[in-house]
Amino acid sequence: MNYPNKKVVSNSKPIIYSNRGMNLEDDINITNKYYLENDIAIIYKKPTPIKVVKVDYNNRINTKIKEAYYEIPSTTDYNGIYKGKYIDFDAKETRSKTSFPLSNIHAHQIRHLISVERHGGISFLIISFVVLNEVYLLETRYIKEFIDNNERKSIPYEYIKTHGYLLRQNYYPRIEYIEILDNIINKYNKKGGSNNEKVN
Amino acid sequence: MNYPNKKVVSNSKPIIYSNRGMNLEDDINITNKYYLENDIAIIYKKPTPIKVVKVDYNNRINTKIKEAYYEIPSTTDYNGIYKGKYIDFDAKETRSKTSFPLSNIHAHQIRHLISVERHGGISFLIISFVVLNEVYLLETRYIKEFIDNNERKSIPYEYIKTHGYLLRQNYYPRIEYIEILDNIINKYNKKGGSNNEKVN
Repeated sequence: MNYPNKKVVSNSKPIIYSNRGMNLEDDINITNKYYLENDIAIIYKKPTPIKVVKVDYNNRINTKIKEAYYEIPSTTDYNGIYKGKYIDFDAKETRSKTSFPLSNIHAHQIRHLISVERHGGISFLIISFVVLNEVYLLETRYIKEFIDNNERKSIPYEYIKTHGYLLRQNYYPRIEYIEILDNIINKYNKKGGSNNEKVN
Repeated sequence: MNYPNKKVVSNSKPIIYSNRGMNLEDDINITNKYYLENDIAIIYKKPTPIKVVKVDYNNRINTKIKEAYYEIPSTTDYNGIYKGKYIDFDAKETRSKTSFPLSNIHAHQIRHLISVERHGGISFLIISFVVLNEVYLLETRYIKEFIDNNERKSIPYEYIKTHGYLLRQNYYPRIEYIEILDNIINKYNKKGGSNNEKVN
């Protein structure tokens, strides 16, 4: 399995960011650090799952792993808490200007996001259109709606623009997604129901 | 750092479980699997954080990690969602019959649990007294209360018995902690406040 090196293997061109020096994962980690330091939200990236095969126990000070392999994550990369709510999401980049290929995300990860929403959590994808320098938050319900009603293997940019939220990009925090969660929480609170109901 | 091998280094005697063949972590993983399969709760163990130093890119089928080291986790081992609530906990074993040594948990992990509770989540420790074959759920507020009011570096068994919940042990699920979360949610709902208020 080549999971964390997929980018290296499938895309030999270096990725150039228009006005940022980092990739989406770094930006989100920095954003989460800001939210944590300011006691706004507690959201962490989960460690990459690694299957350890051989360990050198002789080195007592710092156990050395001599053979290990990357595993496919069971869930998404990020989760945590904001205003008492369970938050769960994954962050994906695409160089396409016209659509987000669903091949970027594992089917079991989409099932996980849908399950979280059904249990009353807030789940979504953060999708970065690298070439356009636009980052969107798309709630799981709209991903599910798209998949349920389309044969296409990629979500068109226009669909994401219509149903998602364009995220503000700053220096610190980099990607302002928490303010959008306020919108989402208020939206479902106003409807008086749980956030399992679809709202347009 | 020797973190995941601490047990091996500090305790050379094999751990014998009175009527179970597995350790606490396995039991909780199996319990979480039960909750997941029955769509009761979505709770996962986070992967152990590992710092990868050398990778063999030649093996295209299955990238081999040739040098890596265990890192101290930033947070706790388990988190997820139950009835819309953010759940966060760690699980610890002790062979002591009289107390739970606080050295079993990192100070920053306790701070994390306290922070989660302040943000409206449900956080706790699952403490297994291996020799007694008793497993308790102790809410973070009582851990904090103990630390704030005591110089002792271990929480007495009697304190845990008084303020914690004894968990039922079965074959599947192994450690029934979700039914206790119902108690906790109801307790704070009845009080009409957020679950940040201490209830005795």
